[in-house]
Amino acid sequence: MLIGQEIYNLCSKMFPYCRSITGDGVRQTLQSLREIVPEITVHEIPSGTNAFDWTVPKEWRIRDAWIKNSSGEKILDYNKHNLHVVGYSTPVDKTVDLAELKQYIYTQPDQPDAIPYVTSYYKGRFGFCMTQEQYDALPEDTYHIFIDSKLFDGSLTYGELIIPGESNKEVLISTYMCHPSMANNELSGPAVSVYLAKWLLSLTNRHYTYRFVYVPETIGSLTYMSQGDNLEKMKANVIAGWNLSCVGDDRTYSYVRTRYGNTLTDIITKNVLQFIYPKYKEYSFLKRGSDERQYNAPGIDLPVCGFCRSKFGEYPEYHTSKDDMGLISPAGLQGAYDVMQQCILVLESNKKYQIQCLGEPQLGKRGLYPTISQKGSYDEVTAMLDFIAYADGKNDLIEISNIIGVPVNEIIPIAEKLIAANLLKVVE
Amino acid sequence: MLIGQEIYNLCSKMFPYCRSITGDGVRQTLQSLREIVPEITVHEIPSGTNAFDWTVPKEWRIRDAWIKNSSGEKILDYNKHNLHVVGYSTPVDKTVDLAELKQYIYTQPDQPDAIPYVTSYYKGRFGFCMTQEQYDALPEDTYHIFIDSKLFDGSLTYGELIIPGESNKEVLISTYMCHPSMANNELSGPAVSVYLAKWLLSLTNRHYTYRFVYVPETIGSLTYMSQGDNLEKMKANVIAGWNLSCVGDDRTYSYVRTRYGNTLTDIITKNVLQFIYPKYKEYSFLKRGSDERQYNAPGIDLPVCGFCRSKFGEYPEYHTSKDDMGLISPAGLQGAYDVMQQCILVLESNKKYQIQCLGEPQLGKRGLYPTISQKGSYDEVTAMLDFIAYADGKNDLIEISNIIGVPVNEIIPIAEKLIAANLLKVVE
Amino acid sequence: MLIGQEIYNLCSKMFPYCRSITGDGVRQTLQSLREIVPEITVHEIPSGTNAFDWTVPKEWRIRDAWIKNSSGEKILDYNKHNLHVVGYSTPVDKTVDLAELKQYIYTQPDQPDAIPYVTSYYKGRFGFCMTQEQYDALPEDTYHIFIDSKLFDGSLTYGELIIPGESNKEVLISTYMCHPSMANNELSGPAVSVYLAKWLLSLTNRHYTYRFVYVPETIGSLTYMSQGDNLEKMKANVIAGWNLSCVGDDRTYSYVRTRYGNTLTDIITKNVLQFIYPKYKEYSFLKRGSDERQYNAPGIDLPVCGFCRSKFGEYPEYHTSKDDMGLISPAGLQGAYDVMQQCILVLESNKKYQIQCLGEPQLGKRGLYPTISQKGSYDEVTAMLDFIAYADGKNDLIEISNIIGVPVNEIIPIAEKLIAANLLKVVE
Repeated sequence: MLIGQEIYNLCSKMFPYCRSITGDGVRQTLQSLREIVPEITVHEIPSGTNAFDWTVPKEWRIRDAWIKNSSGEKILDYNKHNLHVVGYSTPVDKTVDLAELKQYIYTQPDQPDAIPYVTSYYKGRFGFCMTQEQYDALPEDTYHIFIDSKLFDGSLTYGELIIPGESNKEVLISTYMCHPSMANNELSGPAVSVYLAKWLLSLTNRHYTYRFVYVPETIGSLTYMSQGDNLEKMKANVIAGWNLSCVGDDRTYSYVRTRYGNTLTDIITKNVLQFIYPKYKEYSFLKRGSDERQYNAPGIDLPVCGFCRSKFGEYPEYHTSKDDMGLISPAGLQGAYDVMQQCILVLESNKKYQIQCLGEPQLGKRGLYPTISQKGSYDEVTAMLDFIAYADGKNDLIEISNIIGVPVNEIIPIAEKLIAANLLKVVE
Repeated sequence: MLIGQEIYNLCSKMFPYCRSITGDGVRQTLQSLREIVPEITVHEIPSGTNAFDWTVPKEWRIRDAWIKNSSGEKILDYNKHNLHVVGYSTPVDKTVDLAELKQYIYTQPDQPDAIPYVTSYYKGRFGFCMTQEQYDALPEDTYHIFIDSKLFDGSLTYGELIIPGESNKEVLISTYMCHPSMANNELSGPAVSVYLAKWLLSLTNRHYTYRFVYVPETIGSLTYMSQGDNLEKMKANVIAGWNLSCVGDDRTYSYVRTRYGNTLTDIITKNVLQFIYPKYKEYSFLKRGSDERQYNAPGIDLPVCGFCRSKFGEYPEYHTSKDDMGLISPAGLQGAYDVMQQCILVLESNKKYQIQCLGEPQLGKRGLYPTISQKGSYDEVTAMLDFIAYADGKNDLIEISNIIGVPVNEIIPIAEKLIAANLLKVVE
Repeated sequence: MLIGQEIYNLCSKMFPYCRSITGDGVRQTLQSLREIVPEITVHEIPSGTNAFDWTVPKEWRIRDAWIKNSSGEKILDYNKHNLHVVGYSTPVDKTVDLAELKQYIYTQPDQPDAIPYVTSYYKGRFGFCMTQEQYDALPEDTYHIFIDSKLFDGSLTYGELIIPGESNKEVLISTYMCHPSMANNELSGPAVSVYLAKWLLSLTNRHYTYRFVYVPETIGSLTYMSQGDNLEKMKANVIAGWNLSCVGDDRTYSYVRTRYGNTLTDIITKNVLQFIYPKYKEYSFLKRGSDERQYNAPGIDLPVCGFCRSKFGEYPEYHTSKDDMGLISPAGLQGAYDVMQQCILVLESNKKYQIQCLGEPQLGKRGLYPTISQKGSYDEVTAMLDFIAYADGKNDLIEISNIIGVPVNEIIPIAEKLIAANLLKVVE
């Protein structure tokens, strides 16, 4: 759990930043990621730039926001929790009575002690968020409401990292960083992603090229793909990809299928999860919600699954102030890191093998089989014999793993033993 | 339920006619249908005409039939219920004792208060049908049995209606009218069918051509297909078809698969029924029984499903005097009419669509997406986004409907909105 | 059950022979089989001969073996049960104390009253087997242990029988005879097999050629296939095959799939078993264990299923002295014989048929349909009508049987009636 603790510490550091789809919160977050992996490049795309059917919006900058009662006490303070302000709020500075105040306040009535996360990116409005409990207790009074924010022609910020491999075929790891102080959704995604990048950079050999993308959700992935020849290259090269979201709690593992659920990414993800956590949750593409939406859209058609611990929208703390640093844990983050690492290892090692003799080989003379035969003495070689039975040159490692019910990472050492004994060859 | 009531009234009118596979009962029934849709043409095919492996039988005409006891009282009277006589009975006029009488009487022992429906089309015999209760109470006596019937070289009668569309590809709607006074099996079929024809005739545009067929069961469909180039044309043009039978009660919906259960008709029927009545009953072709038998026979191979409310043979009143006007209802008939209408609408509108932008379109700027984002606020646009996700030019409307779980008739207005916004095109 | 009794009697006769993978026990067994079917040829393959990755081992000959206590009493005697000696034991003649003795003794702790079956073919060692109960009761004493055995350059013995048919396409029936006095595993296999051969020889017509193989398990099937052009011919000609093992008890029927579970042999076996014993057990190829291992190995790729009553490894008496003549029965052996006979008959008769008229034929005029129609009177012709519906020239008998749920041996007489009526033809 050493890596898990490091990832958790990074989340803690980035938690207070007030992220949105543009602005300094995104830049601070990217800067923290670059302290782990300096190779990440930062890109600024001007407001007004086209991104397929969309347009990069104005940049949002917020300095302060509060509500004071008639005694001048701050009853709500942006500096105490940045969820108190509706994302992309326009500025305001006026005095209102209780009835008017309530028009600007959003609560989560079914979770009365939680501040909800509310945004209004594409229509100018302002608003405050508080708990239902606070809302219900507001007395008749005169209130001063104040938001010091600004919407201006600035830019949308994203990060990119290409880690080259022997092949120009690519694996895409995408995650997002546009939510303010919430932990699972979303600090977990960028934090796990950057440690995966660090690990991949440390490897001496990589077959595939790895493309890491750090964007604001939706507008960010669309903007990223529409820049230069990004989409063209991705369509030509991406053979598998994952969108990381909500990968920090430790309640379950979840996977959101690609549009038709039939890509290499689906195959790998299911293969890995069935051994690590057989009760994992598999969601139809109809339950998508993060950037797998854009990567799988018609005409884009990239083989990108969603990967989560507890999936967005499926856990009660989602999109509220309850999604805090107590919800995620080093163990939860480590689990997600391990699954993604296994997925990458499976992909890197996924070859076809062919046994080199007719009939079963005589494992005994090579010390690979027990010399005495009695009921119950065969189990230790079952995996080897089962692997041999399906190493007929037609199946790749994932297919064999699925057939014989043994994880790929347990088959690899078996294959190595058989190669060393000249009993097995890789099929090109 | 206005149409349902009209259909029910038509059934009431036709109920008393004594139909069989030939004769005036068929002609009276067709005449009643032609009062609703005069475009139906009537065809008379002479006895002795070949119909594939079969031959058109002699025509049967019955005037009267009764059994009198020794006091001259009619203890059974054809004029009270035409089920009292075995269909195609030869004439008889003689006096018999009780023992002999019983040789000519058919009952339904497991339903002692029902008169069974019995026929003997292809072997000359006479017989009477009564309830088991009446049979058991028959005293020793001398009985006069009398049937004034005639089998002669006449003709077999059927009705046909071709409603042309833009395409010469055809939809077949077949039903039958050879059963005497029973309501679900079979007045419901011709009555629903003729109102579907009336509706189709009222449309200004029809893509497909519609072929309506009104025949006696088995011998009628065989005779119809063997006439002129009917079979040749049907094999060339019929892309979907339904045999309507027992479509008047309101207990369930049933569908009998085509021979391999894999035709467009199967696909449409299942798509429509799953939304209208998810608990609908799907029967294997092994449970066939009406003219889907002939339309699906090897060498004929037409994609014709059976469609029923409670399927023939599966409800207790089937083929007895209990299948009366109380068994069917305006609601039951309307339900069947609605399903068939939906099937036709689905077929007529079943195109492929392709979204016209890369990535998801920005629905917000077109007023098609909520402007504020909070947990729970997305549901209203889910169907639209799901449709867009699968409008990739590969799927037709039925396939998209099955994938996203939304009925075709709810997808059509969504598609129209997107076409109006220049976001969607039909793929030829 | 006459055949079952004959098979049982043959098992009784062969039970005492001390079989192993080589030696006189195999020869005695083959001689007993040749008394039933003299056409079986016997082959001797010298020790040291290559068999793919394997080598024919030295021949093992055992004369006697015992353990005496210090009073000179035999506390264990090979002549009382040949399971008392580890198969392929090297000779020994020495005096040991209890502690040393125990090093040479094998028991089955979870079945304390059973002598286990233990072998050590490929590493020189000696050993004795006894019940756990006897083992636990052994007193401190001085013991004389004695095995009069010999490992020498001799030969491996197998039997072969080719029964020619009209076609050179072959059916393989393989079984093994290398286990000492155990009944289900394995006398049942050779005994059922030889009676199947006798039956096939008695037929005047056989479409296929039948290859019967009697070998020691594993090394025997490998040796057999590696001799001359055996493998080449088998790969060219074998279209279906079964390995018979444990076919003598009457608790269930079991079938072990081929490597991918998709061969004609799988199809036939499932078709036959579903009607004879619908609760039969179907095992994945991962549960293989007998010579289906070798026949299905990559590069050999023969379509050979395992067929058993209670499968090896799945019944408690397996590989112990409890697998005795009381475990198997005439009824159990007859059941296995019947299933294999049905499988062969299904294979021999598995043609495609096509109905010769359009629409359903009029069965009535040919006396094949009831002349009177009333609810419940159709059942007797359902199988015929269902067969006709799928006799469209596309399906073979097995496919039709699976679709309509009627065993092939009940469809054959229906097909014959229809052929006699000129309504059906065989499709070439």
